[in-house]
Amino acid sequence: MKTPNSIRNLADSLAKLPGIGPRQAFRIAYFLAGKGKDNVLPMAKNLAEIVKLKTCSKCFSSYEEESKLCPICSDSRRNSGIIAIVEKETDVASIESAGNYTGIYFIIGEIKKTGGLNPEERRRLDSFKENLQRDYPEGAEEIIIGFNNTAYGDIGRSLILKELKPYAKKITSLGRGIPTGGEVEFADPETLAEALKGRN
Amino acid sequence: MKTPNSIRNLADSLAKLPGIGPRQAFRIAYFLAGKGKDNVLPMAKNLAEIVKLKTCSKCFSSYEEESKLCPICSDSRRNSGIIAIVEKETDVASIESAGNYTGIYFIIGEIKKTGGLNPEERRRLDSFKENLQRDYPEGAEEIIIGFNNTAYGDIGRSLILKELKPYAKKITSLGRGIPTGGEVEFADPETLAEALKGRN
Repeated sequence: MKTPNSIRNLADSLAKLPGIGPRQAFRIAYFLAGKGKDNVLPMAKNLAEIVKLKTCSKCFSSYEEESKLCPICSDSRRNSGIIAIVEKETDVASIESAGNYTGIYFIIGEIKKTGGLNPEERRRLDSFKENLQRDYPEGAEEIIIGFNNTAYGDIGRSLILKELKPYAKKITSLGRGIPTGGEVEFADPETLAEALKGRN
Repeated sequence: MKTPNSIRNLADSLAKLPGIGPRQAFRIAYFLAGKGKDNVLPMAKNLAEIVKLKTCSKCFSSYEEESKLCPICSDSRRNSGIIAIVEKETDVASIESAGNYTGIYFIIGEIKKTGGLNPEERRRLDSFKENLQRDYPEGAEEIIIGFNNTAYGDIGRSLILKELKPYAKKITSLGRGIPTGGEVEFADPETLAEALKGRN
């Protein structure tokens, strides 16, 4: 059976998305082919709409407001001297939902296992350094490294520590230990070791 | 933080796709927001293109050719007296890639655990019965039930057996047993029981 070209093209597009493999891409393409235009065309429109989003020149998050910077960076009630560095916009959303963070953010991108930065990430980090130097000549109050508690996250953390040391009075990382709802009995040894180290 | 409306709309669309949960939908939406229009607009176009696909009125697969029926149903070299009933188009693609099937197909849709048919599946099955009655008044040569070897697949199989008995001289199911590359030592007891039952 010859796969229709339009199915193949759509599956190729879908397979480039995070977490979607080639097999699921075909499954979704065929699923959509069976959905009819009343379902598919609104989705195509939603997709085309997001290219209108702006990128904040300070923290690199996406926003649609008319302001020069994103809503968080433009909010005078936020403490712009405390900056959390995260990998993705969804990490910002998660930290915001915690409800107790009043600083701002800087989204660097997903740091690869080599610990190297791709050109876009390098551009972001350089622009971040310039902003820090201009706004806080004596160093920002605090930079919080909000990377995953994984081997990759640790690689990114050492990179950031090295690069940003001159730009902040203090560089911290998110606390590590037993998650809410987690039981000591079932915690793995590394988590327990970190929970002990971070006891307070 | 207020999630931009265009991110929310796109994530809502994406979360309706098979295998994509709400969290991954947001992750993909933000990923696409960072991709720029050179990447996103071609994908939106690919999506809009698939609404032009036709649905074969005989087997219900999608196709783009000008013919009245899909390439398989229009192929005079295929034995139209042998019909494999499958749940999805991707199942057709898998069976075709096996290379030794010369019959045609009928795609019924994904049968739910209740064993009931949704209105679209009922419509397809009724149209299938009409075609069989018209083309093979004495019954089709063979109907092959090509459902998954799972509890749900078995429920669908009993439904099809009951509904289509009068329309075929023979109703068979795909063989069950040790898969290619599978070792007897590691096969689970049910697979072994089926492999013994189906020995030949």
